Amino acid sequence: MKQKMKEKFYHYIEQLQDSITETLGALDKLDFQEDLWERLEGGGGRTRVLEGGSIFEKAGVNISAVHGELPESLQAYFGVKEADFFACGLSLVIHPRNPMVPTVHANWRYFEMYDKDKTMIDQWFGGGLDLTPYYLFEEDVIHFHKICKAGCDKFNQGFYKKYKEKCDSYFWNTHRNEARGVGGLFFDYCKSNKEMSIDDWFEFVREIGDSFLTAYLPIVEKRYKREYSPENRTWQEIRRGRYVEFNLVHDKGTLFGLKTNGRIESILMSLPPVVQWKYDYQPSVGSEEAKLENVLKQPKDWLAQ
Amino acid sequence: MKQKMKEKFYHYIEQLQDSITETLGALDKLDFQEDLWERLEGGGGRTRVLEGGSIFEKAGVNISAVHGELPESLQAYFGVKEADFFACGLSLVIHPRNPMVPTVHANWRYFEMYDKDKTMIDQWFGGGLDLTPYYLFEEDVIHFHKICKAGCDKFNQGFYKKYKEKCDSYFWNTHRNEARGVGGLFFDYCKSNKEMSIDDWFEFVREIGDSFLTAYLPIVEKRYKREYSPENRTWQEIRRGRYVEFNLVHDKGTLFGLKTNGRIESILMSLPPVVQWKYDYQPSVGSEEAKLENVLKQPKDWLAQ
Repeated sequence: MKQKMKEKFYHYIEQLQDSITETLGALDKLDFQEDLWERLEGGGGRTRVLEGGSIFEKAGVNISAVHGELPESLQAYFGVKEADFFACGLSLVIHPRNPMVPTVHANWRYFEMYDKDKTMIDQWFGGGLDLTPYYLFEEDVIHFHKICKAGCDKFNQGFYKKYKEKCDSYFWNTHRNEARGVGGLFFDYCKSNKEMSIDDWFEFVREIGDSFLTAYLPIVEKRYKREYSPENRTWQEIRRGRYVEFNLVHDKGTLFGLKTNGRIESILMSLPPVVQWKYDYQPSVGSEEAKLENVLKQPKDWLAQ
Repeated sequence: MKQKMKEKFYHYIEQLQDSITETLGALDKLDFQEDLWERLEGGGGRTRVLEGGSIFEKAGVNISAVHGELPESLQAYFGVKEADFFACGLSLVIHPRNPMVPTVHANWRYFEMYDKDKTMIDQWFGGGLDLTPYYLFEEDVIHFHKICKAGCDKFNQGFYKKYKEKCDSYFWNTHRNEARGVGGLFFDYCKSNKEMSIDDWFEFVREIGDSFLTAYLPIVEKRYKREYSPENRTWQEIRRGRYVEFNLVHDKGTLFGLKTNGRIESILMSLPPVVQWKYDYQPSVGSEEAKLENVLKQPKDWLAQ
């Protein structure tokens, strides 16, 4: 049973990639282009990217399954010595064109670790989803978090609070002292324990994965036709710069990809299509831009009564 | 004498900042804006930035002198335990608007390290200058390297080769397996030794610093009026993405700044004004863009006969 979890999960993310790319592609009336690739040291993946859509300026949805020896540089990170690993997951980043539509990121992954006799010594799930708006529509953020909470609540009443807080602290751009976005869920090292078997965790991750489109799509549909000015677009491009800073300086997923000789174009497909860096840009006090910044400096409990 | 090197060098970089910003500002008929800033833990700086020029889309020239306790995260890096440090330097990055004009980066810096009794235990210079073109004009690259070599040759016939190679290996974007640009000079830990006293090193760094405008300005003047297409501009913005990747993932200077609680806006003023990331972009075989890429994959000896 346990030994087949990697096949079960990979099969699931294949289907999930299909349903996400079909739905987004249909909405934007554009197909994702697909690249199948192999990793020299073992494994490979299926990258799907849509660029230049009228709704989605750049959207990447990637699945991969890689395996081999755990690179020395990652041994300390995982607290093991020489080991073999297997890792598979789906990861996506969607950059809409309209600054009123938030960027979204999601990732669901499964790891196995083996000793030198090929015996599995550890296995766990991780993942989450999080929203990065350029303009704050509180009802959108509340909707997103409500879906996150509903998925969590089916498994444990404490999960939403716990994983929402982990999300806020993980996606913290320390050198800017602000959050990357308005959060969502982030969980990691979800291992078999008294309450949850590894199969239960699989069901949990599947629940969250299946709820992704329910969390994000209504926001896109509500906002993508909204008018915006060149100034709104400039602000979006500046904020996208912070997204780049987080991903290249702090993100462990990017680091893991770069250190395991991952496929660069699939790792960096997360980077936004057009970005600006202006020196010491400050939104004017009381503006919509400042309103967003304030929320990023001080993460909120979106579902507080 | 030795104890005053930090004042001597800071005085020099103040003057050098003046002459560089005056010259560039005069050429573009625009003034640099100046920000004076202080660092909470000790020291501060003077940042000068020009944005939106017709020649220079974004140019930042920063000087700073910071001091205090060496952060724990940097102790291993410098191979010391608890210590106090002083660091000052000038650092600049110039992003021209016209894709036919290369980006340039330069940095000259001086460090002192003290034990807990405030006794100086080490002192050294470092720095360099390097060119990042978007289109390859070999004569421009050769001119730049010739000036680099002339400065080096006044001190040691071996310096140019040594520091040119260090530059190629330092500005190597490992995850892309290509150079950031076409190089120049990079030197570090230049300490008093049999051949060169610390005062000699000061003279060397001053020679290289003084030659910066001679190395770069003629290239700007020759190319900035050249016509270019929207496609040339797109290529420039894509290549600027590689510049961002290097600076945020690999650059030790950026890392040092972020880890010593440096002024974020002065550290990140190096990031280009407008950047694009396209998925898996490949220039067509035999194009001018491919010609540049080939040179970046395989650094050349520009002054070979």
